[in-house]
Amino acid sequence: AILLATTVTALADPLPSWGDTDAKSRIISFVEAVTDPASPDYVTPAARIATFDNDGTLWAEQPVYFQLIYAVEQVAKMAEADPAILTSDALKAAASGDMNALLATGKEGLVEVLKTSHADMPLSEFQSNVAAWLDTSRHPTTGLRYDEMIYQPMLELLSYLRDEDFATYIVSGGGIDFIRVFADEVYGIPPEQVVGSSLTASYEVVDGVPMIIKGDALFFNDDKGGKPVGITHHIGRRPILAGGNSDGDFEMLEYTTAGDGARLGLLIHHTDATREFAYDREGHIGVLNRGQDEAEARGWLLVDMAQDWQTIFPVDPKN
Amino acid sequence: AILLATTVTALADPLPSWGDTDAKSRIISFVEAVTDPASPDYVTPAARIATFDNDGTLWAEQPVYFQLIYAVEQVAKMAEADPAILTSDALKAAASGDMNALLATGKEGLVEVLKTSHADMPLSEFQSNVAAWLDTSRHPTTGLRYDEMIYQPMLELLSYLRDEDFATYIVSGGGIDFIRVFADEVYGIPPEQVVGSSLTASYEVVDGVPMIIKGDALFFNDDKGGKPVGITHHIGRRPILAGGNSDGDFEMLEYTTAGDGARLGLLIHHTDATREFAYDREGHIGVLNRGQDEAEARGWLLVDMAQDWQTIFPVDPKN
Ligand SMILES: [Ca+2]
Ligand SMILES: [Ca+2]
Repeated sequence: AILLATTVTALADPLPSWGDTDAKSRIISFVEAVTDPASPDYVTPAARIATFDNDGTLWAEQPVYFQLIYAVEQVAKMAEADPAILTSDALKAAASGDMNALLATGKEGLVEVLKTSHADMPLSEFQSNVAAWLDTSRHPTTGLRYDEMIYQPMLELLSYLRDEDFATYIVSGGGIDFIRVFADEVYGIPPEQVVGSSLTASYEVVDGVPMIIKGDALFFNDDKGGKPVGITHHIGRRPILAGGNSDGDFEMLEYTTAGDGARLGLLIHHTDATREFAYDREGHIGVLNRGQDEAEARGWLLVDMAQDWQTIFPVDPKN
Repeated sequence: AILLATTVTALADPLPSWGDTDAKSRIISFVEAVTDPASPDYVTPAARIATFDNDGTLWAEQPVYFQLIYAVEQVAKMAEADPAILTSDALKAAASGDMNALLATGKEGLVEVLKTSHADMPLSEFQSNVAAWLDTSRHPTTGLRYDEMIYQPMLELLSYLRDEDFATYIVSGGGIDFIRVFADEVYGIPPEQVVGSSLTASYEVVDGVPMIIKGDALFFNDDKGGKPVGITHHIGRRPILAGGNSDGDFEMLEYTTAGDGARLGLLIHHTDATREFAYDREGHIGVLNRGQDEAEARGWLLVDMAQDWQTIFPVDPKN
């Protein structure tokens, strides 16, 4: 199958930003095995479900999750309009852009900042705010728009899979309403194929206008064991391919690759301190321990960004 | 547009089981308006979202919701294997098939029967049970399989919409896991396009096998205002067409038809005591008051089953 893959690749490379390493061969061999009607591993188009984590898998997540940067910058913007909202140390830290001071307020402080920026407002207002933020805010070290800090090799993988009649889903620990603002335009993933964490929501008719209002309680935590549950809830089928980058994706890959027939689990390993960021076993973001330890025994593909990717972002960092 | 619709219909009728009444004309006019690129009401294929209630809209719901019949019959089956499970009056009433005695135990009794038949088991086991039940159980008055008690005119409408590049979703107060067992085969609606009520669920690895376990607490109630919330959660877009049959669908139709551009809300009115069942303003199932009262003012199409449908079920009742 690898020989065949190489031949086809030479004709029209579906993954041009992937180097000619084992990672690319394995992905192409898998896709050919499940799409060739003559293959024993053939899967019907309807069952070609691929699920991908977002933070650290489709776009970057350093120095902190971009959704948290949104929350902090949104609190600052709200405080400009009405300084009276700054009723706590956490909100004051956020408004002054002091991430360390905010983190020092602990989980309670973070939740307060997230609620202030995400809860108790019409969904349409929240999504307008996120769109406006994407248009104006820039990443602190690359100077790029946040939605430019997406991985070119993963964009190619998503397109390749869709060309081969896969449905490509996002299954993220991040917020479903947040990701839907840009996923269609940036990844070609429509709202109905985004699964994520969410707050409660309600339906209300305000001044005669029906609308969805975001509540302030956690409705679903789409992380770790929540990922297979979220997949079941939204999709109702087991994926045949799952990609992630941290131990928050372990259960999704475990569930996916435990199915019958050919399955592919892949983990993006952040090894490139020069072109992106290098991190894995330590820290608060994208921690990858069990996944690294067990990938080989489980047959999961560990993608080495430094070795396997010829390009990281579709556009060059400005700084 | 009605004239054009009539001409096209004469060529190849997409809704042969619908009589030549205003209902059929309005549906076809709507579909042509949103699919004709030259129309001011044109909608891109990606935004052609249609959502349908299930009980009483796509299949029958008398004498009680079929999912409740499943629950009762499943308790009886479980009690045959282990009579010790019959620890309450509600469970005993269910096991003896005495629906009146069960209803007399009130909401608490019903919840107990539903939990016994739906909760605390692997999802795969639940869905196997439902499939086995569909294969063996028959409706008390028609003698049909429950999944034969589907409405031929609605099957045609679903197919017609899909042929016109709509995505057709079920948005039901019934259980998402229950409906997914038959929706693909019976309606052509795949699991990822079924939205419904659900219990909590968890991911567990049991004896090395990853699985989804159904819990026993309500996770989401997909009825009334829950329908627009469920639509938002699963689909993330506002439908342009919504169909239902009871006041549990009011908010879904209200939300759908409040959007910009051409919208269609339709309500199936059960008016045919001879061929199906006649009911509307009273009883415990499919109550339609506000919908009837406001349909005309809101521009919703009230489908009169006796007048507008030439056929009810795809196969003739046996009794
Ligand atoms: Ca991640
Ligand atoms: Ca109904």
